[in-house]
Amino acid sequence: MSKTAGIVIIGNEVLSGKTQDTNSHFLCRELRALGVEVKRISVIPDVVETIGREVAAFSQNFDIVFTTGGVGPTHDDVTMEGIASGFSVKLARHPELERRSRERYGKDLNEARLRMAEVPEGAELVGQDTLYAPVVKMRNVYIFPGIPKILVDRFDAIKERFRDTPFFLKMVYVKEGEGVIASLLNNLLKNFPDLLLGSYPVLDNPEYKVKVTLESKDLGYLDRAFQAFLAALPQNAIHRIEEV
Amino acid sequence: MSKTAGIVIIGNEVLSGKTQDTNSHFLCRELRALGVEVKRISVIPDVVETIGREVAAFSQNFDIVFTTGGVGPTHDDVTMEGIASGFSVKLARHPELERRSRERYGKDLNEARLRMAEVPEGAELVGQDTLYAPVVKMRNVYIFPGIPKILVDRFDAIKERFRDTPFFLKMVYVKEGEGVIASLLNNLLKNFPDLLLGSYPVLDNPEYKVKVTLESKDLGYLDRAFQAFLAALPQNAIHRIEEV
Repeated sequence: MSKTAGIVIIGNEVLSGKTQDTNSHFLCRELRALGVEVKRISVIPDVVETIGREVAAFSQNFDIVFTTGGVGPTHDDVTMEGIASGFSVKLARHPELERRSRERYGKDLNEARLRMAEVPEGAELVGQDTLYAPVVKMRNVYIFPGIPKILVDRFDAIKERFRDTPFFLKMVYVKEGEGVIASLLNNLLKNFPDLLLGSYPVLDNPEYKVKVTLESKDLGYLDRAFQAFLAALPQNAIHRIEEV
Repeated sequence: MSKTAGIVIIGNEVLSGKTQDTNSHFLCRELRALGVEVKRISVIPDVVETIGREVAAFSQNFDIVFTTGGVGPTHDDVTMEGIASGFSVKLARHPELERRSRERYGKDLNEARLRMAEVPEGAELVGQDTLYAPVVKMRNVYIFPGIPKILVDRFDAIKERFRDTPFFLKMVYVKEGEGVIASLLNNLLKNFPDLLLGSYPVLDNPEYKVKVTLESKDLGYLDRAFQAFLAALPQNAIHRIEEV
């Protein structure tokens, strides 16, 4: 069994179409490469109760949870409050975050900036050796900001702690359409029920019609499934093969 | 009250990071422009039971629901089955879809292709006058394919049915950071509690630090809030103003 993960994207700006969320795709790619299986993404508004309920449910259902967004100093930054309420704890000023804020802002420190040192009671800091602003972790929930550049830097600094056994992936670009190869894929799954098998039609490409993905954490199993698939395909149906 | 919407993105390829979902951002932008409020997005795997539970919950919670993905002819296309199970109905071949398939494929029609004529019992077709392949609608759920180009064409063909009273939006690009304007935004919300107010920090832009969005369906209310906000800002803090 892989480690499982869930991602909660918090922000009215995504739901109202003002911002395209790119954080979830970044996290999905990175986590897959680490061998972690992302099982669900939710995009929810900046509402304390909604955040609390969602994060608490994700925390129960998945091994690791990531949240993005809602951690700044303004009125619509209610992620910390939401997560605290979801875990039925209070917000508390984290001494180390407060120390860093005082160091950074000196006499320009104000209430709004101090608010950013408030975390759910019991939360810990991760990556504080290398990161200017460490990641806040509450139980199995890693709390990230919404700004992609900052999220990427912080994730990179701590990602090794998430590593699991890797997935192996083979991709076959097939010249026949899904309507032609569907039954062949069904047969393949009958013989290899644990294979992760994807079939993705491609429009407007003169060279192939479908990208088929075969994936497993068991390389031997994947190889046998892959050989069976190649043998079952009609002659000359393969445009290209890629392996990861 | 605005019409509300929820979006369910169905597909292992998104969760495993192989594909970046762009459909939800397209739908969020379009629906906002139509005056519809998207309240939640879920990205879930190609699993019948998960799809059923999620779509049934969305159908109860929101006025309109959109699903994307999982409607092709292969083993991982289980959206129709999932939605049928969520509404406790059977799958049934839709006569009009079957007719169109027979017309299209003639003697190349096979089981896999006929499977694409199967919809949850009670589903209707929308946009069949103008669309080669109409949208399937089950109760308040509009079922779209995952391929962006096809989704866009089909949505465009039927979008007028979703139109509600419009949102009005003003954006102010502010030269001061969130730490400086946070308390001012809080005051604004105290005086205009129904204002939709967003504050989005921008990195690495020499010209401004925060984009503030003010939004309402009531143009007079928005104008008053906007004037109050401008009056409260420090002198020379405005880089640019945009209105939609």
